[in-house]
Amino acid sequence: MSDNNAAALLHRDSIIIDGLIIAKWDRALFEDMAKGGLTAANCTVSVWEDFQATIDNIVEFNQLLRDNNDLIRPVHTTQDILRAKEEGKTGIMLGFQNVHAFEDQLGYIEIFKKLGVGIAQMAYNTQNLVGTGCYERDGGLSGYGREVVAEMNRVGVMCDLSHVGPKTSEEVILESKKPVCYSHCLPLGLKDHPRNKSDAELKFIADHGGFVGVTMFAPFLKNGINSTIEDYVEAIDYIVNIVGEDSVGIGTDFTQGHDQAFFEWITHDKGYARRLTRFGEIINPKGMRTIGDFPNLTQALLDNGWPASKVQKIMGGNWVNVLKDVWGE
Amino acid sequence: MSDNNAAALLHRDSIIIDGLIIAKWDRALFEDMAKGGLTAANCTVSVWEDFQATIDNIVEFNQLLRDNNDLIRPVHTTQDILRAKEEGKTGIMLGFQNVHAFEDQLGYIEIFKKLGVGIAQMAYNTQNLVGTGCYERDGGLSGYGREVVAEMNRVGVMCDLSHVGPKTSEEVILESKKPVCYSHCLPLGLKDHPRNKSDAELKFIADHGGFVGVTMFAPFLKNGINSTIEDYVEAIDYIVNIVGEDSVGIGTDFTQGHDQAFFEWITHDKGYARRLTRFGEIINPKGMRTIGDFPNLTQALLDNGWPASKVQKIMGGNWVNVLKDVWGE
Repeated sequence: MSDNNAAALLHRDSIIIDGLIIAKWDRALFEDMAKGGLTAANCTVSVWEDFQATIDNIVEFNQLLRDNNDLIRPVHTTQDILRAKEEGKTGIMLGFQNVHAFEDQLGYIEIFKKLGVGIAQMAYNTQNLVGTGCYERDGGLSGYGREVVAEMNRVGVMCDLSHVGPKTSEEVILESKKPVCYSHCLPLGLKDHPRNKSDAELKFIADHGGFVGVTMFAPFLKNGINSTIEDYVEAIDYIVNIVGEDSVGIGTDFTQGHDQAFFEWITHDKGYARRLTRFGEIINPKGMRTIGDFPNLTQALLDNGWPASKVQKIMGGNWVNVLKDVWGE
Repeated sequence: MSDNNAAALLHRDSIIIDGLIIAKWDRALFEDMAKGGLTAANCTVSVWEDFQATIDNIVEFNQLLRDNNDLIRPVHTTQDILRAKEEGKTGIMLGFQNVHAFEDQLGYIEIFKKLGVGIAQMAYNTQNLVGTGCYERDGGLSGYGREVVAEMNRVGVMCDLSHVGPKTSEEVILESKKPVCYSHCLPLGLKDHPRNKSDAELKFIADHGGFVGVTMFAPFLKNGINSTIEDYVEAIDYIVNIVGEDSVGIGTDFTQGHDQAFFEWITHDKGYARRLTRFGEIINPKGMRTIGDFPNLTQALLDNGWPASKVQKIMGGNWVNVLKDVWGE
């Protein structure tokens, strides 16, 4: 059997999880998920939206789930992830990149959980009622934020800290009684960027039982838009060496299918206020251009000299374990 | 064994369902439900409220469910009703008295279903996007209303027509592919009132597989606030003679615990606009003053000469069967 075949078979037989996708949700995307052999993905349904606009996004996704039920299925528990694998479908975990949609109502957290939301980022780039994002001065976790963390722990919604500021992140890590995560981040040790995490930060979350998903978003990679899948593997390896091989997973941050208007929306506070950053051209790493290229990552990790068991952990096994814990199963 | 004991034992061993309660939700109320031996109740959480205000009511009820989980439990399926019986608790079915909370979004119906809403009235006294209530000229079911009925059928939310006008009611009965109900009504044949249903209307819903819950709201009973539980039994008997003993249940319309402000809110269109009706003093029938008196109704139906099997059907068995059908179990 050739190495290529070995990688393809390993990919086919593994649980493959993408811890963060914020793509344009349509059938073409779900077909690419199938091509990529994705077992489940954390799909963003809220960034700047308030409660009801987020419900509207979930309503749209419910319709997509019905219209594409040959390709995708809802995920409320890790059992649903295993079912997706059995059925040869991609499981959809709904997630937020901002708890803004919780508004000032702790009770909305349970409402969203019942609707399938299993993970939510505590802030997106800027300040909200809970804490502050990584693009402005960060005063830490608010009093209300501590109540939000407790309620997320209680109902089983994972706290995500990828776009959260360092002070708020540290205080969420200390406050939470369940593992928290950076669902999609890269190491500051390879590229200096406000979104990237220092070795100390990576070590801190790991030392407190947390989890790290690694993104391949080109602007945060060492070689920018000239990056290749090998640069992505280097970053994953870098983080595994700090965090350990049981607490790392994938969180690509694929934005597939979106137009310029989306990037304008995402790079302005509240979607329309002051500009926070400018990504420039976004080209995903060579070998990892679309979600359909996911099997290349299994191949590249094997090519990096990793044993199959370690590849399987990073490609999805670790995510399942931590979600099971957070979701209280 | 005395007759009294026989009635008490029958009540204790039966599934007792109240198809409509709009009381003030608090622990005292749930204690009275326990005293009344209620297995489950359709509890109103929306009348004039829009989508988000209704979510806020559900959030409040979720908190009540947690704080009083020794007395009550959520009901999403008829299995949950049986579980409530086993656990000696009262099952809470969330219900609306107005589909206003669905707003203009068909997708909100599934959102509410996932949050535990199993029954919704198509209009409350006046016109909404779907149809018209029984206190104004009724132009029938709207085009959007037909889509709402289809979606309620699909996700399993029962269409309630108690406060709905005759034309809209007739068209919902014809449109729905699942049984619909008057969850809480009285016969026009015993008292002329806009809220009461004619013999022809009762026969029409029954002929189309529908269901009738009988209220004891004093202003609609023959003897008004001087009514007794025997007047209530007379009304139930009257309806059973038209509809048949398999399609009738209880729907008290208990408003227990509410103050005058509530009755002002409920008797004005949208909660504040023009006055629609004036109930005057409300005194529940003697023998059925509070929910805790529910065992008296089993007694009164037995005293009416009914066999135990018929009493059990009307007291809850029939509701379970029709809900099972509508909820698609």
